[in-house]
Amino acid sequence: MSDFPKTARNKVKRIPKRGHYDKETIYKILDSAFIAHVGFIVNGQPFVIPTAYGREGDTIYLHGATTSRMLVNLKLGIPCCLTVTHLDGLVLARSTFHHSMNYRSAVIFGRAIEVEGEEKMKALEIVTENILKGRWEESRKPNAKEIKATSVLRLEIDEASAKIRTGPPGDEKEDYDLPIWAGVIPLNHVWGTPEVDPSMKEEIETSESVINLLESQNK
Amino acid sequence: MSDFPKTARNKVKRIPKRGHYDKETIYKILDSAFIAHVGFIVNGQPFVIPTAYGREGDTIYLHGATTSRMLVNLKLGIPCCLTVTHLDGLVLARSTFHHSMNYRSAVIFGRAIEVEGEEKMKALEIVTENILKGRWEESRKPNAKEIKATSVLRLEIDEASAKIRTGPPGDEKEDYDLPIWAGVIPLNHVWGTPEVDPSMKEEIETSESVINLLESQNK
Repeated sequence: MSDFPKTARNKVKRIPKRGHYDKETIYKILDSAFIAHVGFIVNGQPFVIPTAYGREGDTIYLHGATTSRMLVNLKLGIPCCLTVTHLDGLVLARSTFHHSMNYRSAVIFGRAIEVEGEEKMKALEIVTENILKGRWEESRKPNAKEIKATSVLRLEIDEASAKIRTGPPGDEKEDYDLPIWAGVIPLNHVWGTPEVDPSMKEEIETSESVINLLESQNK
Repeated sequence: MSDFPKTARNKVKRIPKRGHYDKETIYKILDSAFIAHVGFIVNGQPFVIPTAYGREGDTIYLHGATTSRMLVNLKLGIPCCLTVTHLDGLVLARSTFHHSMNYRSAVIFGRAIEVEGEEKMKALEIVTENILKGRWEESRKPNAKEIKATSVLRLEIDEASAKIRTGPPGDEKEDYDLPIWAGVIPLNHVWGTPEVDPSMKEEIETSESVINLLESQNK
């Protein structure tokens, strides 16, 4: 996969060695998260709203109620910034100054376009599959009324970059002699035992998508 | 604690019953997270940047390198939106339309002011303590050079709101008869075994702050 061009907008300024511009790295971060934070401007005020999304190729899809402030504004084609962050651990240095976090973040700049018809249905599948792989086929598909109540936007990516920090803390040379514990506390995201809908009929077996999700984390 | 006023900007429009405006609810969401997504505008382009932060009373502190694009722009007093989101679980409904996530998010609107002197030092303590309680006292405090290389901003909160979804999926009445598994897959955030800095002298014991963090999750 190719790289995104490095511009004044997407260039990682602070600690450039943590910056990445290749699609493979950026899309891997997108595909392993569930929520993006979308930034847009209304009357000079920035809004940052958490939302579900899905990606296929160079396209990111957003969806929601037709009345959503985010979608109503984004579909005008205004500049948009979509950011996805994974927090992987707390980085405890000897000095407070070098305390940090291990993380992987992707920042996407682009503009959104509303989609209809076949692409809209396909986009809903992509967003649903990003929540849980295999779920689209298991669940009752959207009907005409539900499709009408939903807006789906395609985010055209102009530029993107990723920023990644891994590894132990980096202290000042003279601080390594201090008697202070230093290291990383990793943060793991673990699926718990599924909570069955109390309104569910007893005889229904757990969906394959759910079983696969739980099995994948035990590998 | 009091409530924030409900305005056109912070009002939760979609599914108003999920909206909260009381400080207790909003601050609890802030205080249990490590990373906020901060939105700001540069030349008409919104940016959304993940960052560490800390809160005390009605004040949120941000910090970073003096050269940080985010801080350089925010300290001009431009409008800012700071959002914190916890993803608590995947909500699997019978219909794709009612798939959702359980989450707690807080959205803060305000403007930032740069702080100096005593407040700057206190703010660095608050931000460090939000990474890990007790760590400020354990670690080597910032020296004059480090303080000079750091910008600290106080976010003056104008308005704020929270949005929370909990509980099982809500399907259409007629869909409850479908033979589809429905429920919630909870997402837990679990601290892993601390990874000691390979450059550390062997004889240093694990810090009390780290032991407390790991013990608190086993309760």
